[in-house]
Amino acid sequence: MKCKRCRNAAAAVDLPSHNSAFCPDCFFVFFRRQVEVGIRKYSLLDPSDRVLVCVSGGKDSLVLWDILMEFGYDTEGLYIDLGIGDYSDRSREKVLAFAAARGKEAIVVDLRREGVPIPETAKRSHKEECAVCGTVKRYFFNRVAASRGFTVVATGHNLDDEASRLLGNLMHWHGEHLERQHPLLPDAGEGLVRKVKPLWRVSEMETAAYGFLKGIDYVVEECPMSHDATSLVYKEALSLIEEKMPGTRSNFYLGFLTKKGTFLNSLTGAETNGAPFSPGETSGKCTACGAPTYAETCGFCRLKEKAGKEAAR
Amino acid sequence: MKCKRCRNAAAAVDLPSHNSAFCPDCFFVFFRRQVEVGIRKYSLLDPSDRVLVCVSGGKDSLVLWDILMEFGYDTEGLYIDLGIGDYSDRSREKVLAFAAARGKEAIVVDLRREGVPIPETAKRSHKEECAVCGTVKRYFFNRVAASRGFTVVATGHNLDDEASRLLGNLMHWHGEHLERQHPLLPDAGEGLVRKVKPLWRVSEMETAAYGFLKGIDYVVEECPMSHDATSLVYKEALSLIEEKMPGTRSNFYLGFLTKKGTFLNSLTGAETNGAPFSPGETSGKCTACGAPTYAETCGFCRLKEKAGKEAAR
Repeated sequence: MKCKRCRNAAAAVDLPSHNSAFCPDCFFVFFRRQVEVGIRKYSLLDPSDRVLVCVSGGKDSLVLWDILMEFGYDTEGLYIDLGIGDYSDRSREKVLAFAAARGKEAIVVDLRREGVPIPETAKRSHKEECAVCGTVKRYFFNRVAASRGFTVVATGHNLDDEASRLLGNLMHWHGEHLERQHPLLPDAGEGLVRKVKPLWRVSEMETAAYGFLKGIDYVVEECPMSHDATSLVYKEALSLIEEKMPGTRSNFYLGFLTKKGTFLNSLTGAETNGAPFSPGETSGKCTACGAPTYAETCGFCRLKEKAGKEAAR
Repeated sequence: MKCKRCRNAAAAVDLPSHNSAFCPDCFFVFFRRQVEVGIRKYSLLDPSDRVLVCVSGGKDSLVLWDILMEFGYDTEGLYIDLGIGDYSDRSREKVLAFAAARGKEAIVVDLRREGVPIPETAKRSHKEECAVCGTVKRYFFNRVAASRGFTVVATGHNLDDEASRLLGNLMHWHGEHLERQHPLLPDAGEGLVRKVKPLWRVSEMETAAYGFLKGIDYVVEECPMSHDATSLVYKEALSLIEEKMPGTRSNFYLGFLTKKGTFLNSLTGAETNGAPFSPGETSGKCTACGAPTYAETCGFCRLKEKAGKEAAR
């Protein structure tokens, strides 16, 4: 099959959801354009930004860092070592090698050194690993960004991630989670840095193809703690639908963003009028660590305290 | 395993979504209660109603007719012979035998005699079989009910049917379809009879178990035209989620009904305020057949005309 764009080279990437197929060069053009449109649509990034890219060693976040450098943004990478044995070691190596090859260094936060490695913290706090990991990562994303003068935190969530999260939120009609679900969470003041997901328009398959064709070396294995993650169930369900009806996943998530304003007003009683989530005011600073929080202490400190009490027994 | 209700007999029906398991007798109590609650919740039926039960020969509609008779409602069955070869013949036999065993007769509409057998009509009108079947059945449900003095039309849609339809409507953000999705479509006047789905709280598996334990003989095979039906894809996706997280399907649909009022106001701009769909005024009567319609001619007559033109070529 010939590339549908240049009609010259052989197609290398088949995209049934776009009813298209591209050769590598035309696929690069397509992919970059999708990411550019995604950034522009909600003004995720500005040329003056200092961008902290959160990299796990997986394909999505390394592709994100790569393409943001290519677009000319001022970026640094943040790697959080989760303390999950060999998996974390291998992931760290991939990140450091990726950065070194581009004349960059990655900021590394080691959760073992911080006293909150994921497996032990989850066990001690009697919480699910994926939930603990989310709380801890969000905390350090923001702390590193705020303390080092970054204006924005970028994560590698792709269309599949966002659509499956949306499906899960709709299955349970989680009004507040639906309200917060958006490629852009604006700067909330009080040290809460803006968060963006520039890959929200590209699928997991497209990101993987881009990483492969660009020769980006990433950790292929999934996190060993994620086998029970409910997000994987929603992903599988959506993949089943997408396979039979290509393009549905994208319609679903993009349609949600279009309807979001009015839709969320109804679920939450808030008046967002189509604008992305407005985080409102935080109640102030965590009395333990000074991080912005809506409560007396922040989620991270509450988790740390809970895990610490259990460890002291 | 013992029955979780009587704690005496052996459990015969396992219900992970209710975290329960019942012996046959206790399952009957459970199932009838679910249907009763479903009827009462939205005042679907009144003892004074004359109920036209639409029966296909499959388990859902025969279980529905059976349980409504048991509840003491004044019912008659309507069988629409779709003209799909042996499948229709076998289905008709099951319906007639079911009715005869209960001292009833079923009203039969034969689509071949009406000039609109599904396979040929779909081919001639260049439409999907399932879409054509829906239009034709809705037309005759209402026509038979209105012409014979029934006050309500009851169909056997179960929780799986409704949840998968909801998922499909959300995937494409079909505001109008979401607005109409409810166990109750009230009487709209002008000959549009009330439509209800009394089995909306019970799953396909529960209905099948009830039919089996009650010894109801039904057509087990699926309609041979439905293999490509998109509704089956959504059903499969939901089953995958339900299997991993029992109870999700029910939470999803029941949660929708709870949020429906405010949610739909936002999508459609209408002011339904939590009430079921208000059909508003029809524009009048179909100029061809006199059926209530929002357009010049009704959907059935437009379909018939399209198929007729093609046949005349």
